Amino acid sequence: MNWDSLFAARTHQMKRSTVREILKLTAKPEVISFAGGLPAPELFPVERIREATDTVLAERGQEMLQYSTSEGMPELRALIARRLSAGELQIHPDNILITSGSQQAVDMLARIFLDEGDRVIVENPTYVGMMTSWRPFNLNFSAIPTDDNGMIVDELEPLLRENPKLMYAIPTFQNPQGTTLSRERRAKLAEILVQYNLPFVEDDPYGELRYSGDPVPSVLQMEAAHRGAKTLDGSVIYCGTFSKILTPGLRIGWVAAAFLVIDKLVQVKQATDLHTSTFNQFVSYEVARDDAFLNEHITQLREVYRQRRDLMLKTMDEHFPQEVRWTRPQGGLFLMVTLPEPLNARAVLKQALAHDVAFVPCDDFFIGDTGHNTFRLNYSNARPERIVEGIKRLGTVLKETIRQPN
Amino acid sequence: MNWDSLFAARTHQMKRSTVREILKLTAKPEVISFAGGLPAPELFPVERIREATDTVLAERGQEMLQYSTSEGMPELRALIARRLSAGELQIHPDNILITSGSQQAVDMLARIFLDEGDRVIVENPTYVGMMTSWRPFNLNFSAIPTDDNGMIVDELEPLLRENPKLMYAIPTFQNPQGTTLSRERRAKLAEILVQYNLPFVEDDPYGELRYSGDPVPSVLQMEAAHRGAKTLDGSVIYCGTFSKILTPGLRIGWVAAAFLVIDKLVQVKQATDLHTSTFNQFVSYEVARDDAFLNEHITQLREVYRQRRDLMLKTMDEHFPQEVRWTRPQGGLFLMVTLPEPLNARAVLKQALAHDVAFVPCDDFFIGDTGHNTFRLNYSNARPERIVEGIKRLGTVLKETIRQPN
Repeated sequence: MNWDSLFAARTHQMKRSTVREILKLTAKPEVISFAGGLPAPELFPVERIREATDTVLAERGQEMLQYSTSEGMPELRALIARRLSAGELQIHPDNILITSGSQQAVDMLARIFLDEGDRVIVENPTYVGMMTSWRPFNLNFSAIPTDDNGMIVDELEPLLRENPKLMYAIPTFQNPQGTTLSRERRAKLAEILVQYNLPFVEDDPYGELRYSGDPVPSVLQMEAAHRGAKTLDGSVIYCGTFSKILTPGLRIGWVAAAFLVIDKLVQVKQATDLHTSTFNQFVSYEVARDDAFLNEHITQLREVYRQRRDLMLKTMDEHFPQEVRWTRPQGGLFLMVTLPEPLNARAVLKQALAHDVAFVPCDDFFIGDTGHNTFRLNYSNARPERIVEGIKRLGTVLKETIRQPN
Repeated sequence: MNWDSLFAARTHQMKRSTVREILKLTAKPEVISFAGGLPAPELFPVERIREATDTVLAERGQEMLQYSTSEGMPELRALIARRLSAGELQIHPDNILITSGSQQAVDMLARIFLDEGDRVIVENPTYVGMMTSWRPFNLNFSAIPTDDNGMIVDELEPLLRENPKLMYAIPTFQNPQGTTLSRERRAKLAEILVQYNLPFVEDDPYGELRYSGDPVPSVLQMEAAHRGAKTLDGSVIYCGTFSKILTPGLRIGWVAAAFLVIDKLVQVKQATDLHTSTFNQFVSYEVARDDAFLNEHITQLREVYRQRRDLMLKTMDEHFPQEVRWTRPQGGLFLMVTLPEPLNARAVLKQALAHDVAFVPCDDFFIGDTGHNTFRLNYSNARPERIVEGIKRLGTVLKETIRQPN
C-alpha cells in the first residue's frame, strides 16, 4: 500500500507535536524534565477521586456508565456556569459545553469557524497546540507582538483591517511565556472586540493558578462589562479545564460562549466523539461540587507552585549566564528563556539532553521564522531538589554554549 | 453578533443527529424507547469497575490521573492487539491506537483521508453517525445495495471504476439493518480490496455480540489471509470498541491498521484532544485483562440480548400487520423495519410517540432520497416486559396507519 499517496492534502500540513515527541525522550527517570506542561502528580487528590468514584458508582452507577448527551452532564454544566459567573455577568448552563479537555474545544472551534485561507490573529509567540490543530486549515496567521504585559493591544488596529475571522489568545499566564495581559490592555481589547464584533477565543487553562500580583478579570468578563451585558451573548468564546486544577487524566474541559456557538459546537461534538465520558463527568462533578475542597485544593497548588517558581527563578538568577533573559510569570506553569542571538535552542537542547535535562524549544510557538533562540521551562512538575539540580546543569550547558557558540 | 455569517462553509453541511435528538424526546420514563443503540444498563459490571478503579488508583494513582501518550496505554494496546490476533495474523501493539470511542476513530479517519469532493463507497443504508462526521467534507457517496447477506459485493465493480478514495462498512450486525456480510461475500470483498489497494474501514462495534448462526472472520482477517500476510500491513482499517461489550460511558475504542495509518492518526489525535483519558484506559485495562471475566461477561450479554431479540421478533410476528417486513439479525443491537410504500416512518413516529413508543426513522441512513418507509428498532436496552408492551403498541399504531395511510 502506498499510503502517502492516499492521505488528504491537508495532512501534509500536519506534523507531530514537538512537545509531545520531546516528552517521550524524557520518559527515563534520570532525565530532569522541564519540558512538559505537567501538573505535579504528587498533588493529585487521588484519595478524594477514589471516594468520589465509589460514591457515584454506588448511587448512579448504571447512569454514569451509559451513553449521555453531547452537551454534557447538566449538573456539571451548571457548576461550571456558576463558577464562571461574576458580578453582573450571570452565565446560564446552556452556555456551557463539556469537552474532552480544552484541546478538544480549541480543535472544535476551528471546525465551526475556519475556512481554508482564513486570517486569524494570534499572539506571537502563541500556543503550539492550537497551531497543531489549526494549521491544516491552511490559515493566514496575523501575529500581534507581545511584551511583559501580554499582547500589545495598540498594535491590533492594522491587523483588524485585514478582515480576520477569529482571534485566539491565552491572556493569563500564557503558554509559553507565562506573561499576563494587563488590566488596561484587557479594557482596550474588550472595547475593540465590541466595536468589531470579532470572535475572540480566550483560552484560559491556567487562570486560577496565580502566585503573585493582583488578579485581573477574564476578557470574557471585561467584554460583557464593557457592554453592560448580564448574559453571555458577546463575541468572547472562553475555554476552561480541570486539567491544571484537578487532574488532566480525566480530560474534562469546557467552552462558555453565546448559545448559537454552543449549539453549533454540539453538532461537531456529536460528529467527533458523541459526548465526553459520562464516567469522568460524574467523577469530576462529585469532586468539584464540594466548593470548599476544590478551593482549598487550588490554594494548595498555588502554594507549592509558587515555591517552585520562586526556586527556579532564584536558581536561574544564580546560575544562568548574564547574556540570557527570561520572563517572570505571576502564575501558570511556564516561563520563557531568550538566548543571545544567534544561539539556537534546539542545539542547546541536544547538549542539555546529554546532561539529562530537557526543555521545549519555542520556535514552533512563533509565527514566522523567529524564536529559534527561545525555549520554555516548566516549573510545576519537578520536585524542588530536581529543579535546583536541573537548572544548575542547564546553567553549565548555557555557559559552555555561550563561550563556544554553535 | 451575527454568528451564522461567521461559521465556516462546511458547517452548512452539518445537522444534528436525528438519533441523538430523538433520544432527548425519549428521556421520560413512561416512553418505551427502541430508538437508541444503548446497551442494557442493568448488565453493566458496576461492581467490577468499582473494584478495578480502586485497585489501579491504589497502585498507579498518580500515573492514571496524569497526561499520557497520544497512542494510548501500552498495556491496553497490547491487550487489544492480542484479542484481534487470530490464526496466522499476529497484530503488533504498534498497529493499535486507542480512541475516545469508535466514533472518534471514524471521525479521525475522515480527517486523514478525505479531500473535498472525494468519492466514498458505503453500504445503502449505512451508519448515520459516519455520515454526520463525513458529510461536511462534501463527499460523493457511492451506494452499494444490500440484502439479507449484507452488501451485494458483485455490484462493487462499477463503483470501483469511479476512483473511490475509501470504502466504509459495518460488515457484521450492521447498523441499522442488523444484517451480516456472508463468508462468501467477505472472501470476494477481500480479493477486490487486495486487487485495488482500496482502503476499507471495517467498523465493528457489534462483532462479539452473536446470538445465532456461524461466526465469520472479520474482513481484516480475511484480507490478510487472502494475501497470506502475518502482519497487519494491508488496506483494511479496523475500528473496535468496548462500548457494547463493557460500557459506553468510559469511551474506549481503538483502530487497528497498518503502521503508517496509525502514525498519521496519532498526529490527528494530538491535535484533536491530545490523548484518550488515561484514567479510563487504566480502568478498562484492569477490567479487560481478566480474560475469564470479560469472556464470561460477553457470554452473559449474548444470552440476555438473544432472549430480547427473540422476544421482539416473536412479538412482532404476532402483532405487526402482514404488510410490514423486517430483518432477522443473528447478532448486534438492531433490526430494521420496512413499511409498505408510500408510508412514511417519520409520520408513524409521531403516532408512536403519542402512544409513548419511540424508534429511529432510517431515511437519514440512506444515500439518495429513499428509505422514508424504514425505521430501526433496538432490542438490547428495554426489559422484556417493555419490549412486549412497546411492540404491541407499535403494532396497533402500524395497523391504524396502514388502514388510514398518511
